[in-house]
Order: sequence, then C-alpha cells, then structure tokens
Amino acid sequence: MAQELTHVDASGAARMVDVTAKDVTTRRAVAAGSVRTAAEVVALLRDGALPKGDALAVARIAGIMGAKRTPDLIPLCHPIALHGVTVELTLRDDAIDIEVVTRTADRTGVEMEALTAVAAAGLALIDMIKAVDPAASLEAVRVLRKEGGKTGLWERS
Amino acid sequence: MAQELTHVDASGAARMVDVTAKDVTTRRAVAAGSVRTAAEVVALLRDGALPKGDALAVARIAGIMGAKRTPDLIPLCHPIALHGVTVELTLRDDAIDIEVVTRTADRTGVEMEALTAVAAAGLALIDMIKAVDPAASLEAVRVLRKEGGKTGLWERS
Amino acid sequence: MAQELTHVDASGAARMVDVTAKDVTTRRAVAAGSVRTAAEVVALLRDGALPKGDALAVARIAGIMGAKRTPDLIPLCHPIALHGVTVELTLRDDAIDIEVVTRTADRTGVEMEALTAVAAAGLALIDMIKAVDPAASLEAVRVLRKEGGKTGLWERS
Amino acid sequence: MAQELTHVDASGAARMVDVTAKDVTTRRAVAAGSVRTAAEVVALLRDGALPKGDALAVARIAGIMGAKRTPDLIPLCHPIALHGVTVELTLRDDAIDIEVVTRTADRTGVEMEALTAVAAAGLALIDMIKAVDPAASLEAVRVLRKEGGKTGLWERS
Amino acid sequence: MAQELTHVDASGAARMVDVTAKDVTTRRAVAAGSVRTAAEVVALLRDGALPKGDALAVARIAGIMGAKRTPDLIPLCHPIALHGVTVELTLRDDAIDIEVVTRTADRTGVEMEALTAVAAAGLALIDMIKAVDPAASLEAVRVLRKEGGKTGLWERS
Amino acid sequence: MAQELTHVDASGAARMVDVTAKDVTTRRAVAAGSVRTAAEVVALLRDGALPKGDALAVARIAGIMGAKRTPDLIPLCHPIALHGVTVELTLRDDAIDIEVVTRTADRTGVEMEALTAVAAAGLALIDMIKAVDPAASLEAVRVLRKEGGKTGLWERS
Repeated sequence: MAQELTHVDASGAARMVDVTAKDVTTRRAVAAGSVRTAAEVVALLRDGALPKGDALAVARIAGIMGAKRTPDLIPLCHPIALHGVTVELTLRDDAIDIEVVTRTADRTGVEMEALTAVAAAGLALIDMIKAVDPAASLEAVRVLRKEGGKTGLWERS
Repeated sequence: MAQELTHVDASGAARMVDVTAKDVTTRRAVAAGSVRTAAEVVALLRDGALPKGDALAVARIAGIMGAKRTPDLIPLCHPIALHGVTVELTLRDDAIDIEVVTRTADRTGVEMEALTAVAAAGLALIDMIKAVDPAASLEAVRVLRKEGGKTGLWERS
Repeated sequence: MAQELTHVDASGAARMVDVTAKDVTTRRAVAAGSVRTAAEVVALLRDGALPKGDALAVARIAGIMGAKRTPDLIPLCHPIALHGVTVELTLRDDAIDIEVVTRTADRTGVEMEALTAVAAAGLALIDMIKAVDPAASLEAVRVLRKEGGKTGLWERS
Repeated sequence: MAQELTHVDASGAARMVDVTAKDVTTRRAVAAGSVRTAAEVVALLRDGALPKGDALAVARIAGIMGAKRTPDLIPLCHPIALHGVTVELTLRDDAIDIEVVTRTADRTGVEMEALTAVAAAGLALIDMIKAVDPAASLEAVRVLRKEGGKTGLWERS
Repeated sequence: MAQELTHVDASGAARMVDVTAKDVTTRRAVAAGSVRTAAEVVALLRDGALPKGDALAVARIAGIMGAKRTPDLIPLCHPIALHGVTVELTLRDDAIDIEVVTRTADRTGVEMEALTAVAAAGLALIDMIKAVDPAASLEAVRVLRKEGGKTGLWERS
Repeated sequence: MAQELTHVDASGAARMVDVTAKDVTTRRAVAAGSVRTAAEVVALLRDGALPKGDALAVARIAGIMGAKRTPDLIPLCHPIALHGVTVELTLRDDAIDIEVVTRTADRTGVEMEALTAVAAAGLALIDMIKAVDPAASLEAVRVLRKEGGKTGLWERS
C-alpha cells in the first residue's frame, strides 16, 4: 500500500495532481451499488416501468449525466474526456442493483466517474420512491474493476 | 404506504411535481453514510488532517457544495433555497462516518440535499484515498430524520 | 406594443432588470414546439419506447432538467424558484410534438423556462435520431399561454 | 437509413455510446435557425444594437456559451473539446436569422453543439423581445452541413 | 470587530451558516474593481466597441452571468434569489473601471454576488485583451456599499 | 503589440477563436493575487487554520474548483483538459497572498484558468472574513509566467 495521500502535498494542502506526463491510454471502470427498499416499492417501480414508464429511465439518465458532472462534484478530480457510459439496473426482491461501466482514452482513470454515476442513479431512485419509502438507503457504492493506465487491471476480490 | 409513485403520471411519464400550493415552512433533514476502508487509510487521513491538512476539509466542502448541486443531479428535484448545511466527519477504526444536516424555509423538504451532500462527501473521500485503497466503499447513505412540512417529523426507527 | 427593450438601458448596455418590487404571485406558462423528421424515424421512436424503452424518457427528462438550467443559458434571465414542470410528447406521422407546462410562485414569469424545456427536449430527440435522420429539425418553439403576474393572462391567438 | 436508434441498447435502455475506438479527426458543423417576430421588433433590435448596444451581443454570447453547455443539456451527448464557435445574426424584415459554425478535433461530431448554440441564441433573443412581442417564435433549428469523421461530408439538400 | 469567523465552527470545520431564521428583506450591494492595462489597449476596446462591437458587452454579460454562478464558485455561499444586476464599465486612460449593483429580497446579502460579477467581468476583459497585453491585471475588487438586512447600511470610508 | 482584438471579428462580433490547427503542447501558467485585510483578521485565519481548521482549505479548494469552471465563467474561453492545479496561500501581516500554478497538454494556454483560480480563492477568503472585515479587497490578480505553446515563455517583468 502507498504511504501517502497523493491529493495533499507535504504540508497537507489539497491539490489537483499534475497528470500532464501520463500517457493517453484506453481506460475502463466498472462500479456498482444498490438501493435497498421494501418489496412493495420494487413492485411499484416494476409497474412504473411499463409500458411507457420513465421510473427506471430517470435513474439511468441521472447516472449518465452524473458521470459527466464528476469534476464539478469531486473537488480534486480532473476534467476528463468521457467516451462511453452504460447504467444497468436490476430489480431484486427488496433492492435495485446498479452497475455502471465508464470508458475513456485519457490520462487518468474513470473510476470516480463510474462511482458518481452509481451514486446519482441511486439518489434519483431514492428521490422517486421517498414518498412511499422514506427509509430507502444507498448501499455498497464501490469499484468492481478498473482497466488501463500504468497500474493496469484491478479487480475487487 | 402510498400506492403510487408521485414522480410519474398515470401514463408513466416523469414529471416535476407541482408544489406551488404547498406552504413555505421551516424544514430540516439529517442524513448519514459511511466510507469503509482499511485502518491504515484512516490513519493516513488522521495524519493528513494535521496541522494544516486539507484531507477532511475537501470532503466537508464537497458535501456542502454537493448539497447546492442537488437539482442539477437529481432530475425531478425542485431547485430550493438552501439555508444551512453542516457536514460532520467522524474517524472510526476502519471507516469514516458522515452526518449532514440541511435546513430551509421553502415548499419542499431538504432530505435529497442532505443525501446528496453525504454522497458527495463520501465520493470525495474515496477519491482522496483511492490510490492507497481502491477497495474503499460508500455504505448506508440514508435519511435519519426529517422535520417540517405537512408530513411533520419522520425518524428512522 | 412597448416602445423599448427592457433588457438594455438607455445607453444600450445589457442588464438584469430589477424585480425586487414585483409581487410574488402564482404563475404558469405553456410552451410548445415540434421535431420534424421522417415517418420511419417516428416508428423507431415508437418501438424504442416499448416496453422498457428510454427513447422518449430521455427527451422528457432533458426538458425538465433544461427548465432548471434556464438562468445558466439565457444571460439576462432571473434565477427562479421553479415549482413544477411537465413535458408531454405526442408522436405524429412525421413529427414529435412537445408541450411543456411550467409553474412557480415568484416575481417573474416562467415562459423562458417553458421555452428552454421545449428546446432541450427537442434537441435531445434530435440527438437520439440524428444517426438515422441528420435532416431532423426543431420547429415552432413558442409560448402558447401565460398566466399570473401583473400582465395576467396572455394567449396565443 | 439506419435500422436502429444507437442511443438505446437492445432492451431499450439509454446509454452514452462508446466512442473510444473512433479516430480523433477535424470536424466542423454548420447549423441555423430563425427567430420570427414583428417588423417593429426587428427595428428595436437594430436600434438597440447601435452604437454600444448589447442587444445582439447577448444572443451571440448566449450561443457561444450554450455550445459549451451542450453535454450538460443533452443527456446522452459526449463532453467534447470544442475548438471554435462563431454565431452570425442577420436581421431580416420580420425575423432574425442565426447561423452557427462549430469546430473540433475529437472523436465525435459537433452538430449538437451547433444546434444548441442556435437554440440558446434564439431563446436569448426571445427573452430580450418578449415584453414587446410575446408571440415571437424560434423556427427551423437544423443542421446545414457537417464535415469530418468517418461519415464525411453531409449537406442539407 | 467580530471575534470569530462565522463560516467555521468551534472545531474549525467549514459550514454553510443557517439563515433560516433571518428576515426576508430588500438588500442591495455595490462593488467595484478595475482592469489595468496599456493606453493602446483601452483604445482598441474603444474601437472594438463601435459600432456593433461586442468587446465590452462580453464583459458586461460575463458579470451578470457570473453573479448568478456565485453559489457554485464560493463554497460556503447560500444560493440566493438574485433580483437585479447591472454592470457599468468606464474606459479610463489606462484602465477599465467596473461597477456592479446587485439586488435581492432574501435572507442574506448580495455583496458576494456583486464581487463575483466584478471579478467575472474583469477576467473576461483580461481574456479579451491578453493577446495584446499579457500583463493586464485586475485591481481593487471591493465592496463600496451594502444596504438592507439586520446590519443595515455599510459604506466604504 | 498586436493591432487587433482576436476575440471579435472584423465587424466587431464576439467569437470563440478556432484553435483546431494549433498543436497540442505542454503548457503551464502561474498567476497571483492578494487579499488585503486587517492584521487582526489574518490572525483569525491563522487560528482558524489550526489544528483541524478549514478556513484556508476553503480558499484552496475554491481555487481548484474555480479553475475547472473557467469556460463556464469566461464567455469566449475554450473548454480545456486541465491536468494539474496547485493553490498556495501565504499569510502576510495584513494580507493573504495567493499563487496558482495550472498545467495542461492542450491547444491553448492555461493562464485564464490560473487567473480564475486566484479570483475564486480570493473571493472565498473575502466571503469567509466579510463579517469581520467588510472592507477586505482582492488586489493585483495577474499572470506571473506562462510557458509552452507557439509564443513560448512569457514572464512578468
């Protein structure tokens, strides 16, 4: 494990780390999370999604647009050329699982973009169901896999 | 429990619900979450925070600024006059706990603002520590308490 | 008809007109527009909208989010407390009609918000279909009706 | 004509299409539109534009800044390195014509940026004249020409 | 003089101060600043401003739009209902003076909005002239006067 | 010295200059400024910065995030791939000095990003101290040095 936080300098001051010298390489990240709620609420979302229902679309689009807002939200994140985003939602018994894939060909990884998309999609779902379940929560927002760049492949064990 | 999703109409189309007729009342929400990481990483944050260290300040500020961006991130959220935000971080053995309080005097509640602040603070922490712990995760983003408005007090049981 | 442009002063300089003294009243605006394309494209959208299809949801959500971005896009527009937005899409033979209703209780009208929502929804549709019809166009973006405020009801004749 | 919408997958879910593998090439788009109003209003704009008048400048700047906001407004649009934007306004008898040229050297085209600039410039004009002509409308927002990329030149016939 | 910084709590943590209990009153702020450059550059701006020239309009509009972005830029600033903004530019021998007036009827003052408008207008001017004078500087960005709210009138002595 | 403003065309219309043909080169800019206030206020900031105090962190983070918002604030600025930002604050007797370094490998320079970061950091400081010193001012926002690109090194004399 690294010994130091890269985002603060020796005196403790926050900085945006210089990546000018890093190579432009193809990078890909997969992140996931889950909105936990009541089974009845998942049923409402299932209904709300048919046939023209926008309930899940709102979350998918919040995820994609959230990925693009990452440098606005995360103070020390680099603005990045985001080249592709997919948001997959899976309805479970009492949860909605979220999985996001982000891609770029740039100097830094896209895992923060993937995590931000998961969070935005999850919060949009909670917003949609909060009137029926104020206790809904967003759980386990985490990176599953990242590829590309100098560090290469990392997979969650 | 309510029988319907308020954010989609009878045909399933997404909408921003009309709140013109709702009263302007004082409202307050408390939300929480937690970044789970390794004990060594919490130690680095502790060090990074002293004496001029910005490590935790970045997360607090990301939370406050994230609360202000809520209507940009959550598609069907109303823009709101946010009147106060606090972000409290507590270092645990292998986690950083986040608690946010938001306040307003407006027509809708501020729990989405509180949840968004928790998520933004948590993601900013993950960004800061991801080079040392790529497995860090954001857990249990949830409302603890909301006050004000027609529905009055709700507390997590 | 008024004799002068309110948004520039006597010397021609742009300004955001002072509305501090105006009353807070309930206001509502209806705006419309239309994306003209080929009949085959409308058929694709119809298919893409069933059963979990997000094609039209993307436009509805772009409209709602676009309404919230109005003061960022229109230089001299006031930031406003937007209280409700609906976006209705109707598939015609060779066009998609867009109708938006915006509501507020504030010091200025919400017709610019309604027009911006129509434009954003229309551009989102064009983005979705541009690979199949690069000749699609956005037509007749206009206010149909506005209510509230000192000038009261205005209807397109 | 293509048989499918590229922005939704086989199940109908919205996505930001992956362009990582596309070449970085020089691209250029030309789009146009028109604000239709009364002849007296065009006269006011003409006056408002002289000698230090900002009336038309507001629209030109709204167009340029709007082009930069395209990925914020159009949900599935890629963020792009916009390299040049011009906005040309021509006063007609009862209309203001808008023509925008956008340029980049990137992986996707810039026609959505050009269209968004036309819409933003047009809406800014409508905002400026709405007190004198609430019936003004934005017409015929469309791509005239696009160059570069794999598909090469396309011209409106 | 106050003994403490209001924007950090007793432990030093940044916060957005709660203003829920403050009265909604009419407030007004005047701020100023100056771009110092060479006399030849001021002459170019004078020319560029005639007859359809947008040189100064760009700065005025940057100021007005910048005022609206204040809560996005200043971390602990409250989002506010900005009710009016004017930006006045005066060409001096070797400087451009900027004076901004902002108005609101809200719970907090608008002096940060006025200062941000001055800074944005000044930076836009520097951007416009930087190719001809890379040494141009922005000087003396300061509040001249504020009115309204509990503290009442304050004037720069 | 150049004879013309590059940001307006021959007719005086504002434009975003086309940089498509410019080389992607490593670029770096240094800008500085200073917040002038009372000695007692600098003392409060010094205290507020110890041991967990966020007072200066707020300004550093405002500077870094402000650099990323440059194309949103400065109308004719190109969106740019910002690769690194540092903000250094130095407490003087009656002033806080701000120095920012920005870096990129792109087609245009990063001096506007550096200047915007200085202004945002300075305004965030003024916001923090305005309750104790309403007379604080931001002074001498200027480029110290720029490197890279066709024009090469420029240093303030």
